[in-house]
Amino acid sequence: MRFLSDNTATACPEILAAIEQANHGLVRAYGDDPWTERLDGVFSEHFGTPVRAFAVATGTAANSLALATLSPPYGAIFAYHEAHIAVDECGAPGFFSGGAQLALLPASHGRLDAATVGTAFANHPRGVHGVQPAALSLTQATELGTAYRPAEVAQLAELAHRAGLKVHMDGARFANAVAFLGCHPADVTWRAGVDVMSFGATKNGALTAEAVVFFDLTLVRDFELRRKRAGHLLSKSRYVAAQLLAYLESGIWKRNAARANALAQRIGIAAGAALLHPVEANEVFLNLGVARRAALRTAGFDFYDWGPEPAGEARLVVSWDQREQDVHALCAALARS
Amino acid sequence: MRFLSDNTATACPEILAAIEQANHGLVRAYGDDPWTERLDGVFSEHFGTPVRAFAVATGTAANSLALATLSPPYGAIFAYHEAHIAVDECGAPGFFSGGAQLALLPASHGRLDAATVGTAFANHPRGVHGVQPAALSLTQATELGTAYRPAEVAQLAELAHRAGLKVHMDGARFANAVAFLGCHPADVTWRAGVDVMSFGATKNGALTAEAVVFFDLTLVRDFELRRKRAGHLLSKSRYVAAQLLAYLESGIWKRNAARANALAQRIGIAAGAALLHPVEANEVFLNLGVARRAALRTAGFDFYDWGPEPAGEARLVVSWDQREQDVHALCAALARS
Amino acid sequence: MRFLSDNTATACPEILAAIEQANHGLVRAYGDDPWTERLDGVFSEHFGTPVRAFAVATGTAANSLALATLSPPYGAIFAYHEAHIAVDECGAPGFFSGGAQLALLPASHGRLDAATVGTAFANHPRGVHGVQPAALSLTQATELGTAYRPAEVAQLAELAHRAGLKVHMDGARFANAVAFLGCHPADVTWRAGVDVMSFGATKNGALTAEAVVFFDLTLVRDFELRRKRAGHLLSKSRYVAAQLLAYLESGIWKRNAARANALAQRIGIAAGAALLHPVEANEVFLNLGVARRAALRTAGFDFYDWGPEPAGEARLVVSWDQREQDVHALCAALARS
Amino acid sequence: MRFLSDNTATACPEILAAIEQANHGLVRAYGDDPWTERLDGVFSEHFGTPVRAFAVATGTAANSLALATLSPPYGAIFAYHEAHIAVDECGAPGFFSGGAQLALLPASHGRLDAATVGTAFANHPRGVHGVQPAALSLTQATELGTAYRPAEVAQLAELAHRAGLKVHMDGARFANAVAFLGCHPADVTWRAGVDVMSFGATKNGALTAEAVVFFDLTLVRDFELRRKRAGHLLSKSRYVAAQLLAYLESGIWKRNAARANALAQRIGIAAGAALLHPVEANEVFLNLGVARRAALRTAGFDFYDWGPEPAGEARLVVSWDQREQDVHALCAALARS
Repeated sequence: MRFLSDNTATACPEILAAIEQANHGLVRAYGDDPWTERLDGVFSEHFGTPVRAFAVATGTAANSLALATLSPPYGAIFAYHEAHIAVDECGAPGFFSGGAQLALLPASHGRLDAATVGTAFANHPRGVHGVQPAALSLTQATELGTAYRPAEVAQLAELAHRAGLKVHMDGARFANAVAFLGCHPADVTWRAGVDVMSFGATKNGALTAEAVVFFDLTLVRDFELRRKRAGHLLSKSRYVAAQLLAYLESGIWKRNAARANALAQRIGIAAGAALLHPVEANEVFLNLGVARRAALRTAGFDFYDWGPEPAGEARLVVSWDQREQDVHALCAALARS
Repeated sequence: MRFLSDNTATACPEILAAIEQANHGLVRAYGDDPWTERLDGVFSEHFGTPVRAFAVATGTAANSLALATLSPPYGAIFAYHEAHIAVDECGAPGFFSGGAQLALLPASHGRLDAATVGTAFANHPRGVHGVQPAALSLTQATELGTAYRPAEVAQLAELAHRAGLKVHMDGARFANAVAFLGCHPADVTWRAGVDVMSFGATKNGALTAEAVVFFDLTLVRDFELRRKRAGHLLSKSRYVAAQLLAYLESGIWKRNAARANALAQRIGIAAGAALLHPVEANEVFLNLGVARRAALRTAGFDFYDWGPEPAGEARLVVSWDQREQDVHALCAALARS
Repeated sequence: MRFLSDNTATACPEILAAIEQANHGLVRAYGDDPWTERLDGVFSEHFGTPVRAFAVATGTAANSLALATLSPPYGAIFAYHEAHIAVDECGAPGFFSGGAQLALLPASHGRLDAATVGTAFANHPRGVHGVQPAALSLTQATELGTAYRPAEVAQLAELAHRAGLKVHMDGARFANAVAFLGCHPADVTWRAGVDVMSFGATKNGALTAEAVVFFDLTLVRDFELRRKRAGHLLSKSRYVAAQLLAYLESGIWKRNAARANALAQRIGIAAGAALLHPVEANEVFLNLGVARRAALRTAGFDFYDWGPEPAGEARLVVSWDQREQDVHALCAALARS
Repeated sequence: MRFLSDNTATACPEILAAIEQANHGLVRAYGDDPWTERLDGVFSEHFGTPVRAFAVATGTAANSLALATLSPPYGAIFAYHEAHIAVDECGAPGFFSGGAQLALLPASHGRLDAATVGTAFANHPRGVHGVQPAALSLTQATELGTAYRPAEVAQLAELAHRAGLKVHMDGARFANAVAFLGCHPADVTWRAGVDVMSFGATKNGALTAEAVVFFDLTLVRDFELRRKRAGHLLSKSRYVAAQLLAYLESGIWKRNAARANALAQRIGIAAGAALLHPVEANEVFLNLGVARRAALRTAGFDFYDWGPEPAGEARLVVSWDQREQDVHALCAALARS
């Protein structure tokens, strides 16, 4: 029973159906097709404001292409010290930006707070000897399965803007955060000051489709050239665009996220005192101890060890298509152990 | 009637079927899945030698990731001056390699010849003041729709190896070249000295799937890290791997290429004296003159202008799913005009 | 008798004296010293307009730092195909810019002409698939010892600006060009449309001192950060600044250049029909034939072979401190042979 | 009275004399001159082992060029979190390496210890998702004016080598460390496992001269090309080489360092309980409190605030040419306050 990652999931039937419907006729390549051309409109509708939205194949590409439009090569990108961009992308932000440096900050439950961020901005040395503060990157939902509240994003973004930085949101699990918060997608993005976001769909039911969404429209031309140059402009663009359209228009973004969140919350409740962080998305972090963790694995549950050993911590991720019976079995095993 | 590019085509039914068959069950992400794990074996079988094969989403990524494993930042990459890597990838080789410089050479009908390449190697300045010859990149089929013969590849690769360079093949239309030559895929690749190739499937019937194939296995680790870092390691890798497996195992690689080639040859014959280059793949280049070219467009044929104006040249590309009646109409229009 | 390069020369007494005069007292590092602080004023005086001037240690650094402020990573830099930036800097423009591509053009006697440049701009493909025209780089005096006239620079710069490009001048031998033209330094720089220049002093009498001079003052902040990051902000900045001040204020820039030019012209006259390019600076290019060239070398003259063999071409460079008797001997040898 | 930095000092008479002696005759450029050619020998003599030594103009260049030979673009460079390469070089390691990431570690008194480093290596994630441990950089003397003992360097280097990393030493104040330790230069470099070092001379009496010294000779070719490409191969190389030769052969490296160290120790003693770190080189770090620090400044002493406010910390650096009376005055002021 696989709780390793939501990347282990299948694609939604609605997504496959959309691909098949797009598979007719000869259309122009590289985005001049009817599907890709609808992206801006459908994303603008979703966010309730005019945006530009671009398809790419991976979250790493989305994050780093977005960050490269925000940071010069001599820029500093502020982020949580366990952020995906810091530890899971093999240095991609440095590659795409031409050498920008990450300025990594501690955070409670994965959420950066205003005091930490404000101090970091204030203490960052000025002058030509240091890298220049350029961007703040927030992950929503965070790497620890929590979600920033709209007011938190707004406060951090205001700090960033006042200090001359732009704000990026890594929304690989954005749908899970919005489903949990019960807010409008705008509330934790442009209305709160986000300039550009990585909008994830792959983990939540797409085949392979992510988007970069620009609320700050001045950055678009630079992005388009960087995307092409990085090999992330797909020739048969219609197939990724079709996935993104279906993802938003069919409502599966919310349905899938809400289902995974709900199952994750059941696991969190079953875990009781072992729970390390509030369950506000589809990830559950547990402090099981080494023996109990091993027993769970022996019982047939697959998941990743997490954090420093020998604490015996574990991360369990619920996918959109996770079988209810597996979650039930996991909850039972946790309650028993 | 669309003759703009083979990127305008749909995906083959066999490809869609393979994606659907892969859409079952939770499997590990990032390539630790049964489909991706079969790639090396199936590609080794295809090429008749042990290779390592890696899926990526675009041809630009395949080319530049491959070249970055062959060239240091201070390297020179020799290629035809109208090569796709030189004019159609927004400087991607420079980006992926950290600044390698292209050394661009003239070629007759898009095929570099030994005299030109040998002279370029011999005349390239030595010492630390110039970039260092690192790689030779050959496109097969070429950007002008011709195909290198096995002996030609072997001669160029030998020149390169003797001068200390590695050999890359841009095989975006590799199937078309092999179908035309009637040779074994090995004959124009590793047996002729190619070290690494970009293996295209997208233009010839895949949804979105390219591979980087290493005949020189020492380059693999460097590649894997560069791929991840560039955002080209797909999380749900199974869906691209499944396409590549179906592409090779079902035989559509050859069937589709042979069909497109045959239709292109009919166009070439119909074009008569207007034909600029031998038709050895699925592309036809014509010198129509501005008036005749405009008339063709008015008659409903879509294609790109090509070359310097006001010569009135045109490129017409036949896709794997091109309707025979459209080709028939085009031939008739060419014969008439 | 050494005619290899003006880099083989010593430093001028005035330069050494300036260094010694600067060698007193503790002053702030990294440019906050009285010598460095005078650079802007003295260069503004020299050019007759407000400029910002920055010291760096080498011409390669000056060129590439300047170009990196003009070109994004996906930019194209247009230059003569034998330009120093193209063949003698080991790919530095690609390194400093993050992968910009050189678009190399032919030129008669090393001087780009408006027709060639205009056509190149016009033919450069638009859209995201190609690198974006960003900068035109002119070398003054050129790599072939000729000098652009003010009207020529102005015409090329106007073409560039109209097409959205910025203009860089590689002035490694700028003094030689100005001495030959008899014009004001402004006439072939900002008045003619140059945005930023590499201002050479090393070849013409300095110890090791070059400057980057900005006529377009908006580029300065970006430059300062790139310079620091590239290790070209000198800690004991006063010693390079003192050289540049002495170079301009003592008048040696003109005296040294005029002397070298005059000696070079004598060689050009002695060479007669062997002369390949007009002598408009301190370099002489000769078509001697292999035998005569070898004889000259046997007679004790040191110089570089140039151009494709077996034509037997040679480049001879006169340094500011070249002994007159050596030039006399060379002229005699040329006349004899 | 200036205690800001040893970069504020003048150049030693021996250095200026060496430059003047080198200022005769025409010699080949770019390092093919008698001074540069002696560098390898004189540095090999200094270190008691065959080395290759290369002149560059700045310490930032020395550090980052060295690190770029040790780390691929996807590498991790481990260093003290306040290391010069981390906070004072505007991201230079990321620029020169093509995006390598710094992995920053805490240290007591600026000296990394084996436990911290060992844990960091052990905990660094494997696999393609993270940057790959590539180099460990140690600063000697450290940024906090302390010196690693030979056994400490050896222990750290062994950890690094066992984990597959190379070892770099930032020796901007190497002479001060060696003078303090009373050891042979070999004892804290190659004999202790250092692979390449940045060898500083500028702060300790040179005009502007640093060296990169390779104990691992396999890295040299890569370095030479990177140096040229970064604009750090000086055309009139003799003038920097002459400084480095004089620096070692005249013995000023030791004399100057010993003098500055001794004066710094007097300040440390005068500071008493305010001393933050042992004085093992020419830097003194004091915890004065804001009021006392301001008073010192009012009394005419120039220095940098250091560390987080409002602690009132200060860094005072003694230069090789610091006037004894200034140090005397400073000691008196500290004792009084």
